Amino acid sequence: MRYELHYWPGIQGRGEFVRLALEDAGAKYRDVWRESDRMSLHREAFAPPCLKAGRLVIPQTANILLFLGPRLGLAPKNEAARLHLHGQQLTIADWVAEVHDTHHPIASSLYYEDQKREARRRSRIFLAERLPKFMRYFEREVDVKLSYVHLSLFQMIEGLRYAFPKAMRKIEPRYPRLVRLHDRIAKRPRLARYLASERRIPFNQEGIFRHYPELDAR
Amino acid sequence: MRYELHYWPGIQGRGEFVRLALEDAGAKYRDVWRESDRMSLHREAFAPPCLKAGRLVIPQTANILLFLGPRLGLAPKNEAARLHLHGQQLTIADWVAEVHDTHHPIASSLYYEDQKREARRRSRIFLAERLPKFMRYFEREVDVKLSYVHLSLFQMIEGLRYAFPKAMRKIEPRYPRLVRLHDRIAKRPRLARYLASERRIPFNQEGIFRHYPELDAR
Repeated sequence: MRYELHYWPGIQGRGEFVRLALEDAGAKYRDVWRESDRMSLHREAFAPPCLKAGRLVIPQTANILLFLGPRLGLAPKNEAARLHLHGQQLTIADWVAEVHDTHHPIASSLYYEDQKREARRRSRIFLAERLPKFMRYFEREVDVKLSYVHLSLFQMIEGLRYAFPKAMRKIEPRYPRLVRLHDRIAKRPRLARYLASERRIPFNQEGIFRHYPELDAR
Repeated sequence: MRYELHYWPGIQGRGEFVRLALEDAGAKYRDVWRESDRMSLHREAFAPPCLKAGRLVIPQTANILLFLGPRLGLAPKNEAARLHLHGQQLTIADWVAEVHDTHHPIASSLYYEDQKREARRRSRIFLAERLPKFMRYFEREVDVKLSYVHLSLFQMIEGLRYAFPKAMRKIEPRYPRLVRLHDRIAKRPRLARYLASERRIPFNQEGIFRHYPELDAR
């Protein structure tokens, strides 16, 4: 199966959670919007990312990973295990949305500069309350057996380090299992090659993880 | 199978999307936190709702409906149809989160009164941009065949009418399929009985859908 990923070409964003799974599994895929000028969204999708697999068109990041997981060897095939991992992935999706809203608490359609005051307030509470709550949950609940959830947790830690370097330096020592998981994932051969390649878009100020020093811890 | 729903006792909230499916199907379930003083959350869950089905513990609203759908006759059994409906349900989950953030744009842990100014700004843009985008998408994409997604769309329209009565009166005429769907669902016998019963918690100012006149359209 040759997959087609439809996602914004200039950012990692939510598409990156899908790319990491495809890359780690060595799957064949086309990153369609990066390879052409055309960025048309399938009508089935409310927003990108969207995966095309043969005749199937699958919207929503976590839904794509639910589908890909067993096919890429990144999730067991039985229903109980799939629901368990999917529940964790949906919690990561909530976490991602909260990270996005630290810099865009009022509207995605407004510039950061036009909601900076609100972003400061939201970020302060995110770093004090929400970030530790998510980290604590995954520190306790992350499974031993490799799955796409591990790849997504790797990406969360990478992104959070980019966005909030000071806050992360402070709190990471409290979550040794997550840090070890991150380091282990980074060394997986196919993934390491991907991360060093031009296919890995660098973090930047248009993505979900953005670095505004004024939003970080002191 | 006798299901156990674990969710806050005093609000409809996210749990209501699960209740509607269970009630419409006439399934046997216990609303555990409403029946006892104990509100302990399974460690598998980051937050409620959570469904217990035999030995399975399933967190995340959309994940619960993915599981229940075919078992309650509210979704086909084949994978393509399940992924399709689940993609729509995840879009509803995003919509619900945006509705919540109209009154809590800074933090769930702060009172509304302490983020009222920001709530006004966020609601204005939600009503102008996001609400029509979601309504337009589902007006176009909603399937003919009954599924749990229909029950959730019924709930969205009910909740939005409670929260934003003026805005909804203005825009509803543009979405006749959704309005007809809402009316059809409300008349389903088991659901109509549920809605008229004491099991249906009234909308209130602690839930996701809240009515603050100052956030509604003029």
